[in-house]
Amino acid sequence: MTKLAGMKPQHFIWEMQDRIAVIRLNRPDRKNPLTFDSYAELRDTFRALVYASDVDVVVLASNGGNFCSGGDVHDIIGPLVGLDMKGLLAFTRMTGDLVKAMIGCGKPVIAAVDGICVGAGAILAMASDLRLATPEAKCAFLFTRVGLAGCDMGACAMLPRIIGQGRAAELLYTGRVMNAGEGHAWGFWNGLHEAEVLEAEALTLARRLAAGPVFAHGITKTQLNQEWNMGLEQAIEAEAQAQAICMQTRDFERAYRAFVAKEKPVFKGD
Amino acid sequence: MTKLAGMKPQHFIWEMQDRIAVIRLNRPDRKNPLTFDSYAELRDTFRALVYASDVDVVVLASNGGNFCSGGDVHDIIGPLVGLDMKGLLAFTRMTGDLVKAMIGCGKPVIAAVDGICVGAGAILAMASDLRLATPEAKCAFLFTRVGLAGCDMGACAMLPRIIGQGRAAELLYTGRVMNAGEGHAWGFWNGLHEAEVLEAEALTLARRLAAGPVFAHGITKTQLNQEWNMGLEQAIEAEAQAQAICMQTRDFERAYRAFVAKEKPVFKGD
Amino acid sequence: MTKLAGMKPQHFIWEMQDRIAVIRLNRPDRKNPLTFDSYAELRDTFRALVYASDVDVVVLASNGGNFCSGGDVHDIIGPLVGLDMKGLLAFTRMTGDLVKAMIGCGKPVIAAVDGICVGAGAILAMASDLRLATPEAKCAFLFTRVGLAGCDMGACAMLPRIIGQGRAAELLYTGRVMNAGEGHAWGFWNGLHEAEVLEAEALTLARRLAAGPVFAHGITKTQLNQEWNMGLEQAIEAEAQAQAICMQTRDFERAYRAFVAKEKPVFKGD
Repeated sequence: MTKLAGMKPQHFIWEMQDRIAVIRLNRPDRKNPLTFDSYAELRDTFRALVYASDVDVVVLASNGGNFCSGGDVHDIIGPLVGLDMKGLLAFTRMTGDLVKAMIGCGKPVIAAVDGICVGAGAILAMASDLRLATPEAKCAFLFTRVGLAGCDMGACAMLPRIIGQGRAAELLYTGRVMNAGEGHAWGFWNGLHEAEVLEAEALTLARRLAAGPVFAHGITKTQLNQEWNMGLEQAIEAEAQAQAICMQTRDFERAYRAFVAKEKPVFKGD
Repeated sequence: MTKLAGMKPQHFIWEMQDRIAVIRLNRPDRKNPLTFDSYAELRDTFRALVYASDVDVVVLASNGGNFCSGGDVHDIIGPLVGLDMKGLLAFTRMTGDLVKAMIGCGKPVIAAVDGICVGAGAILAMASDLRLATPEAKCAFLFTRVGLAGCDMGACAMLPRIIGQGRAAELLYTGRVMNAGEGHAWGFWNGLHEAEVLEAEALTLARRLAAGPVFAHGITKTQLNQEWNMGLEQAIEAEAQAQAICMQTRDFERAYRAFVAKEKPVFKGD
Repeated sequence: MTKLAGMKPQHFIWEMQDRIAVIRLNRPDRKNPLTFDSYAELRDTFRALVYASDVDVVVLASNGGNFCSGGDVHDIIGPLVGLDMKGLLAFTRMTGDLVKAMIGCGKPVIAAVDGICVGAGAILAMASDLRLATPEAKCAFLFTRVGLAGCDMGACAMLPRIIGQGRAAELLYTGRVMNAGEGHAWGFWNGLHEAEVLEAEALTLARRLAAGPVFAHGITKTQLNQEWNMGLEQAIEAEAQAQAICMQTRDFERAYRAFVAKEKPVFKGD
């Protein structure tokens, strides 16, 4: 296990409070586009989070009123136009690896989205476990508008499971904006909050999860992904095994002792 | 085939009217917790229902204003704290086997939920085919609050398919109550009814299903589960086979004859 | 590649404008039932669409205030009652092949539904990529009312992914009508429009998709189906490959050049 508290990423802002890491892209003047460098550094960070002993929850936050404008047209799309297939696949795999790293990092990820959340930015929100937004959040899977398909970084697999197959098809074929009200009604956003309290709400939720049981939360995350395409009977057996593991944690015993003592349990993560 | 009309279960109430079986837990003073015994007896009952010739639909009803408070802290959680892995897995498999038995029983199961519906109680509602509730229904997948993961008895597989991946993640990570309005808007509850008419409404729906075609309903249930993780093309072929089977039933012919005679079909289940 | 512009189908109306094909059943006096002949001709048409060089989007339209009343009782159900298993399976496979042809045709299909949309008609809407309807649209998966199971032409696989497992189960077990408001709130209909503008709205949407990038739209459709039951990690890798393919199209470069020149991209489909 390693500690990430001292980490100094070059391509995004990293802040820690208690056991919560807050990540935010840092080009607010351009609505926080992604670049080759920030993609790679985010991927490596989420991979490192698996082994981080000092982080329990991650918040992907906005900056300057926007979340993320996706792959930068000049910094990313321009160079891609000149690449051969080997180079293109290396790029699309790198972006996919970021999503794989997010879903495999073992800790809940909460997106706190204000303003623009489009393209790869919409994917970062989608690949988070929980999503809060402001009424001004504009989310668009706009790949089609740059001549590409809706199948970017897992969108054709994940978006239909979040908002339903028909609504996902519309967003992916047209690239249109899903406004905040639609996103909330459709289950994309778990809640809407005014911009001035969005991050506080996200941190409150993060602290609630960081209060534990964090080992069990990690298993919840693992199983939500692991059972994605299992048969029903196989999923039920997988959960029997996974939950039996959780029943051997001391946090399970702590909860029981607290209940008997009519106290609130204090989870410690083991 | 066997008859279950005379069944005298020890750990829950069993009532039959016409070809509908009504099951209700029977510790209303404690909001109807599950125990090792009631788990096992429910599992065995749903397994027996496969072969029951006198039951077409099952209603899981409430008792004393509540549905089920889940695994009892004293009767279940306490003993679990002391078990080794072999014992724990035996327990989690038994609870999973109850869900497997419900989805494999061959007959539609309707949950009629008033009041508290939490933990394993929420799972029983989730594993039913149709779900009615009162405006007072409080449903929580609160495993996390006793130090466990959200992956209990199939919840990480089934809940996302019912209410969407994002909403399911929130309920499973936080253990918070889904109130009746949310549950209805999200598609968890098929309908809300005042407490005084809830059971009548559930029985009306049950009678509608029991009026048949019950063989076909059994195939619908089978296919909803069977196609859970099939490819689309494979699912379409599976349905071609399953529906061809139904077209050889006499109920299909009865429906046609009734239509030609401008009468309402009377289905007989063969 | 072939051209379909001159096609003269015998059992439905085929109209083309620009690169959009409009298909409508043509027995409005009987609310446009399907027959053995129209099933087969539709299946063959959707199979031919894969290779059609002059069609980019398909609209399944209504006729005389109704979409489709499903398999005709006299023309289809009557003869089925007398068939042996070999004949029945040949029929159910033919109907399933129509759905397979729709999801495999490589071009977006938009259903524009007014009035009655039941049985196999509801399936045609469900198997479309996008669905618009009028407030008068009545959609029912009413197989159960003719003695059959809800598993018809992929309904037990596809409907739960569109509207959620619980709502789908209710519609498939009961055969009840989903009214237009429910269908919109549940994500079955992408939008509701008054009858007098429904087809214009569908054509506007079709033109938007036909404006491209149509190669990429075809890949979006492929991946939405292809990833149906993939694991998450496998889906992400599949999208890395699929999107890399799209990045080698000239439409991707056209979009980039247009952006740099502050113009609207003109896609050409290669």
